[in-house]
Amino acid sequence: MTGPSLAQVADDARRAFASTVDSSAADRARWLIAVADELDADASELIALAAEESHLGSSRLTGELARTTGQLRLFAHAIVEGSYLEATIDHPEPASTPPRPDLRRMLRPLGPVAVFSASNFPFAFSVAGGDTASALAAGCPVVVKGHSAHPRLSLRTAALVVRALDACGAPDGVFGHVAGRATGVALVRHPAIRAVGFTGSLHGGRALFDLAAGRPDPIPFYGELSAVNPVLITRAALDARAGELAAGLAASVTLGNGQFCTNPGVVFAPAGSGFAQLVAAAVGTPDPMPMLSEGIAAAYADRLAELAGHDGVSIVAGEVVQQPGAAAPVVASTTTSTVLADPSALLAECFGPAVLVVEYTSVGEALDAIRAIGGSLTATVHAEPGEELRDIVAVLGEVAGRVLFAGWPTGVAVSWAQQHGGPWPSTTSIHTSVGVTAIRRFLRPVAYQDAPEAVLPPELRESNPLGIPRRIDGVLTLP
Amino acid sequence: MTGPSLAQVADDARRAFASTVDSSAADRARWLIAVADELDADASELIALAAEESHLGSSRLTGELARTTGQLRLFAHAIVEGSYLEATIDHPEPASTPPRPDLRRMLRPLGPVAVFSASNFPFAFSVAGGDTASALAAGCPVVVKGHSAHPRLSLRTAALVVRALDACGAPDGVFGHVAGRATGVALVRHPAIRAVGFTGSLHGGRALFDLAAGRPDPIPFYGELSAVNPVLITRAALDARAGELAAGLAASVTLGNGQFCTNPGVVFAPAGSGFAQLVAAAVGTPDPMPMLSEGIAAAYADRLAELAGHDGVSIVAGEVVQQPGAAAPVVASTTTSTVLADPSALLAECFGPAVLVVEYTSVGEALDAIRAIGGSLTATVHAEPGEELRDIVAVLGEVAGRVLFAGWPTGVAVSWAQQHGGPWPSTTSIHTSVGVTAIRRFLRPVAYQDAPEAVLPPELRESNPLGIPRRIDGVLTLP
Repeated sequence: MTGPSLAQVADDARRAFASTVDSSAADRARWLIAVADELDADASELIALAAEESHLGSSRLTGELARTTGQLRLFAHAIVEGSYLEATIDHPEPASTPPRPDLRRMLRPLGPVAVFSASNFPFAFSVAGGDTASALAAGCPVVVKGHSAHPRLSLRTAALVVRALDACGAPDGVFGHVAGRATGVALVRHPAIRAVGFTGSLHGGRALFDLAAGRPDPIPFYGELSAVNPVLITRAALDARAGELAAGLAASVTLGNGQFCTNPGVVFAPAGSGFAQLVAAAVGTPDPMPMLSEGIAAAYADRLAELAGHDGVSIVAGEVVQQPGAAAPVVASTTTSTVLADPSALLAECFGPAVLVVEYTSVGEALDAIRAIGGSLTATVHAEPGEELRDIVAVLGEVAGRVLFAGWPTGVAVSWAQQHGGPWPSTTSIHTSVGVTAIRRFLRPVAYQDAPEAVLPPELRESNPLGIPRRIDGVLTLP
Repeated sequence: MTGPSLAQVADDARRAFASTVDSSAADRARWLIAVADELDADASELIALAAEESHLGSSRLTGELARTTGQLRLFAHAIVEGSYLEATIDHPEPASTPPRPDLRRMLRPLGPVAVFSASNFPFAFSVAGGDTASALAAGCPVVVKGHSAHPRLSLRTAALVVRALDACGAPDGVFGHVAGRATGVALVRHPAIRAVGFTGSLHGGRALFDLAAGRPDPIPFYGELSAVNPVLITRAALDARAGELAAGLAASVTLGNGQFCTNPGVVFAPAGSGFAQLVAAAVGTPDPMPMLSEGIAAAYADRLAELAGHDGVSIVAGEVVQQPGAAAPVVASTTTSTVLADPSALLAECFGPAVLVVEYTSVGEALDAIRAIGGSLTATVHAEPGEELRDIVAVLGEVAGRVLFAGWPTGVAVSWAQQHGGPWPSTTSIHTSVGVTAIRRFLRPVAYQDAPEAVLPPELRESNPLGIPRRIDGVLTLP
């Protein structure tokens, strides 16, 4: 790897923070939009490079790049709107016990942020992806650790980001790029870094989480690690539309060759319904497709062998033995009693185009198994109108950050109400990595007590010069 | 210790969560107010018990109990107002790429919370203190680990809390109390516990933080650990009102015998100003007062000996050798160059009525020393009107969660705009433990995609039956 050292990049980020910490939302919005425009302008080159390195098709990559630049523009819009600052003013109340001073609170940027690119989203969760966009939007310089599965795309995207930021006058060092596993470890430990965004495996993520928590000054580690994304189909739904459900599931499981963190890995269907066979038929026997990397393909094959070797699991479609570097879909089936007897072996994530259909004899039993899976990004129920869903929704809401009542979990809209994050191990559970509120991860509150008007950030001045929503003496007020 | 086992209490909390997770804000507001009323009704008994065990005076304790019950009532008000849920609705946009489904997001309670009582706030940061109030307000059952410095008060307060909760129909097990150091460790490791609130020493807090982060399923640990709370006095301010500043500082340092986490431990004053001597005169030679515990008194004496033994530190007032169990004020002085040569030895917290006056020859040098202190809950500047404060405010806002421009940091108003939390080691820096937003620590977001109206929480139904503020299609709207 050529390019500047980590020490240099981190030091530049620290210096840039001295400017970005007090930068205006309007300026940062310009930076984000400039990056989006630059990436859009270079779309064909970037998509070709991404297709070559990731083996994802160019139509998928075209959509992903559009989503990535849309994401940058959405954050630009959100920071100008200003609610994200949680600006709050309490005027003095000398008569209260104890006397209340003038207190004005808002969120401020945390400091330089380390962003780890994901293998499976070379645009949307990589160099200029959601973590980078939300950290820059917050006013935090970013140091990206590029992914080894798409090194040339990383370098090229980073160069375009730097060019766009330079051209619109963003501070030097506000964005940096490094590569290599050892550099990633050093990055998490670097004193200048104040938070980490990570999308990747449970194993790698846990190791970095432990480093972040083990620092002399622990820093937040926002990891998106592993999700099984359970689906529960009621008997009534299956009776009403088995074919449609099988087709929808097959499409979701095989989308992007199964390499989505929201891939529905375990589906609960009523016993004796023959749903696994319907899914097998819908999946068909497509040719193996290349995976993101040799390592990911090998892990898929290993996990399939583990699953197929388990008593009580049948392979309904596809081959357990896979071609090196590639993957073809597999449909397996088992029962809730088998699953509940050995949940950790049967319910672990299988990253690739595989689905385990679990036949249940009672909904309660299926919910016990869903609880045994633990935290997921999503949980889905397919039911018919009028069915009582209280118990089901309670469990799905307990294990996941997004609960779906129709459709399939792949495809994550970038919007204000999105939630991409659930209980461990899907993520740490109190924040999202997709959608506008992802920005909250990179902010910390500061209150100013009895401050002269002139030293206050504009967002907290009495006259509200930027016209943002604020809470004043306890009352939320719109500009 | 008699009473139920940890296993029992944690299991009760887990069962209670099945009810509290979907409880209404109105119900939880009733619980909080019932607890406040019960504590107010028993104020004289509680204050007498607290005075006996903590050696804090009854007038301080009377104020602290009023603050504690006011805090419970403020959270009751805030959850009914409803903004804390961040309710957000994105209506479907079938035309967007990818098509956007109906998404509705709000914050939901995290699960049972462990709360560690503080020695120095037997009411406001203990059994029914801010962590308990904010967790219950969020809908999380609470298991309090009582502090060994006030065991009888803890048990009595816990009994009153349970009585009040029972009487108003709160679920069994929503509040539990345990005691003992080993039990505290087991509590942080217990699978039912989803977050921890802690106020205490850096040493003990770090150990529990490591346990929480080291779990198979790491949970958030909200610790308030250690703060030096630097103060910077400009030459102009000292020229204008040295006597007033010395008197104010002396009162703040000795308040509650110095046993406040916001105690101003290190004060930067211009060289040659004689400020340390003025503070010494203002402190006078009061009799030693009993500390919260023998251990805290011994730690104070140890820290003083360490400080006094350091080359370049003079003791200006008070005795380094203290009486067992008690503490009298000490004023020490040194220079920024001494401090910068060995910051970790000179700038560590000294829990008790001591202050280190650091003489500076330039503001830049003082700011370097303030940076060397690291994270604090507060940072204060005393300046005269019209002075240029940009550099000072930049540094104070970087190291602390609350920046004061007048007055002294002791005394923490409980309000919407309060921030009690700053960079490590004062706390983890992105949340507060005092004020309304403390509730955010015990919530996690859940999004419902394409949900039938009937299964949605009322806060997300189209008709907004509870009349709370919501963001709809990106626009913040008031009821």
